[in-house]
Amino acid sequence: MSRRAFRASILHFLRDPHELPHARVSESYAYFEDGLLVVEDGLVTDVGEYAEHAPALGDTPVVDYRGRLIVPGFLDCHVHYPQTGMIGSYGEELLSWLATYTYPAERAFADLDHARAVAELFLTELLRNGTTTALVFATVHAVSAQALFEKALTLNMRLISGKVLMDRNAPAYLCDTPETAYAESKALIEEWHGRGRLLYAVTPRFAGSSSPEQLRVAKRLLNEHPDCWLHTHVAENKSEVAWIQELYAHECAPGTSYLGVYDHFGLMTQRSVFAHGVQLDDADFELVAKRRSAVAFCPTSNLFLGSGLFRYRRAREIDIKLGLATDVGGGTSFSQLQSLNEAYKIVKLQGDKLSALEAFHLATLGSAEALELDDKVGSFRDGNEADFVVLDPNATPLLRFRMANARGIEEQLFVFMTLGDDRAIEATYLAGERAHAR
Amino acid sequence: MSRRAFRASILHFLRDPHELPHARVSESYAYFEDGLLVVEDGLVTDVGEYAEHAPALGDTPVVDYRGRLIVPGFLDCHVHYPQTGMIGSYGEELLSWLATYTYPAERAFADLDHARAVAELFLTELLRNGTTTALVFATVHAVSAQALFEKALTLNMRLISGKVLMDRNAPAYLCDTPETAYAESKALIEEWHGRGRLLYAVTPRFAGSSSPEQLRVAKRLLNEHPDCWLHTHVAENKSEVAWIQELYAHECAPGTSYLGVYDHFGLMTQRSVFAHGVQLDDADFELVAKRRSAVAFCPTSNLFLGSGLFRYRRAREIDIKLGLATDVGGGTSFSQLQSLNEAYKIVKLQGDKLSALEAFHLATLGSAEALELDDKVGSFRDGNEADFVVLDPNATPLLRFRMANARGIEEQLFVFMTLGDDRAIEATYLAGERAHAR
Repeated sequence: MSRRAFRASILHFLRDPHELPHARVSESYAYFEDGLLVVEDGLVTDVGEYAEHAPALGDTPVVDYRGRLIVPGFLDCHVHYPQTGMIGSYGEELLSWLATYTYPAERAFADLDHARAVAELFLTELLRNGTTTALVFATVHAVSAQALFEKALTLNMRLISGKVLMDRNAPAYLCDTPETAYAESKALIEEWHGRGRLLYAVTPRFAGSSSPEQLRVAKRLLNEHPDCWLHTHVAENKSEVAWIQELYAHECAPGTSYLGVYDHFGLMTQRSVFAHGVQLDDADFELVAKRRSAVAFCPTSNLFLGSGLFRYRRAREIDIKLGLATDVGGGTSFSQLQSLNEAYKIVKLQGDKLSALEAFHLATLGSAEALELDDKVGSFRDGNEADFVVLDPNATPLLRFRMANARGIEEQLFVFMTLGDDRAIEATYLAGERAHAR
Repeated sequence: MSRRAFRASILHFLRDPHELPHARVSESYAYFEDGLLVVEDGLVTDVGEYAEHAPALGDTPVVDYRGRLIVPGFLDCHVHYPQTGMIGSYGEELLSWLATYTYPAERAFADLDHARAVAELFLTELLRNGTTTALVFATVHAVSAQALFEKALTLNMRLISGKVLMDRNAPAYLCDTPETAYAESKALIEEWHGRGRLLYAVTPRFAGSSSPEQLRVAKRLLNEHPDCWLHTHVAENKSEVAWIQELYAHECAPGTSYLGVYDHFGLMTQRSVFAHGVQLDDADFELVAKRRSAVAFCPTSNLFLGSGLFRYRRAREIDIKLGLATDVGGGTSFSQLQSLNEAYKIVKLQGDKLSALEAFHLATLGSAEALELDDKVGSFRDGNEADFVVLDPNATPLLRFRMANARGIEEQLFVFMTLGDDRAIEATYLAGERAHAR
């Protein structure tokens, strides 16, 4: 039995601050200014005040992170690892961006060695940025998923991914068929789902690039493996929405929304994650809530591709499960601190505020709930996997100067999300083991 | 006579890429992949291909920056040095943000020692981010301007600043009077304007915090010192605009716009810089063009305070002088690379594109023109002051990986503005002397 403890300021969420009246918002989290996190065999066994827990430590080694803040590792609810090398590609909106940059870049992932090299760089980048769990798009090539799973297994990372399904409206070199999609996904599920901390997501790219037959295959895979995830895109920008509705006009009932197309094929499960949703209306949000599916909010990507402003407050009012995502390469940063920075701006442009508590909840416990992983990660609940990050308030001269003026933990969190980047991540731990040190 | 040369890839602008048809856009800049920049006594004496200029070098020492990109130092056309310690303050829009955070923070600048300490940190931060010239708000206290000028003089920096004029609608501890505003500004102009590379800006905070009498004092100062600048705010958000129009309803002709108030007082000169202008309409832009004044575009600030989306393309079509600004502490980064990242998103949300060439022109020569300093800085024109930055394409692992896929200088510039931050600034030079090394 390996047992270790970490001394630092420690914060994690117990519930959603959005659900509480303002005066009781402090009930949403536990904060220990001089705290202790105890880890046994990779799991959290205790968290609380240092002074209270220290006497029971015995000869347990204590890692001293005083002056820093430990929070649960961030989750990234939608990211494309094959797009790491094309992050920040200029000028296009979604559909032309796919054709111009994305598809050519993804072609190279037919090659296992290339996929392995990028998978390694990608996972290193996640850890540099404090992200300990991600829901990841691979490419259409089974080997692309294999390469990512191999590396994540070595790191003992809690990660969900899957081979992409796409059989139309894309270059031939990126298309599978309903049959190969089924067979390859099935083989990958059998090999990887549940191995180490890995999990599988059936991953149709989006309704525009999968035929109705292939969407039925996706449903069949979910029926046969009901503990797998469904991961796809929805309603990112307006021309995409119009196109999808036209594409399925004969297949679905009149007036079916883009999201409704997925529902038509039975793809809205409790483990379904729909990325973007910028153009979803209230009826769509209500359908998401009813199916207990989740939406992944992708701030830097939505701004970079000019898709629009996600209706964050409305999504919260309708109480859908909401996760935070970078959407690299449509997004411009692997840092969830920077995603929160942009999320704040998106909410602000709509005349509202995203508090630091809501923000950090979203990046940790909220995203864990969106991924149906909150019984494993996203907070320091007893028995959860000990994935966490050590945030350094003195990471840069400006951060140090600004933090000196911060009064209280909420302002500190806000400064981290406004000024912080990968440098603010002093260390990242996976299951109690240090996987990244700055 | 001191003579030195710098070998690197070198880029600077000769004219505005916006003015050229797409096919001729390469005429807007000079790019030397293996270039040489020659500096004598702090001034640029030559720039071109290394192979061409090397034979004439003689025993001139050559600093080898091969593998890096030298561009002119960035200009920041609107920034508040006293707000450095409150950057990233949560939640408010402009007017309540001033009352809640800004005014209390500025109070401390009555103390010269405090002002000196923050001025030093601020100027260091500018240089870390590759900014070599800035138009800077101090506070109402004459000593705040003094502290900044002292430090900038020591650094030999090309910098414009001035004591703030504000005599109403602010806490008493931050108010001067028309009389003290005049006397203190006059004394500061006499002491600092034209000393070293320092220049003075008459700086009424905005029409809401200066009385008509004080705006007349500002005009009097400009009349007596026609080579000084005028620096103020305009039309940042909607409630501010409504308030200003109400405030001046009796003073100005019916229908006078917020900008028109400044014009009414004769404050729109060729050296007037108006920060923000998010809410300016076409008639306002046309007035800016007619008066040959300039607007400072503040991307991170406008998003952070939720002020709205600056009508960039319209401003370019009407051909006003436009500068780029961080507006720290309303802005969230000292990095003009990050300002460009956000500028791109603001333009994209309006269905348009900001090219990397337009962007880097804006941050260098465009801003120098906006500040009427293009005969001194902003490009490597013969005889200009040798202010420049050395950009490192390998500054972070992600930047290195992404740059390896970049084809050509334009894509490299775009990657710098999307993924770059202060780490991408390997060195910053003022008048040929290294003032910052990473």
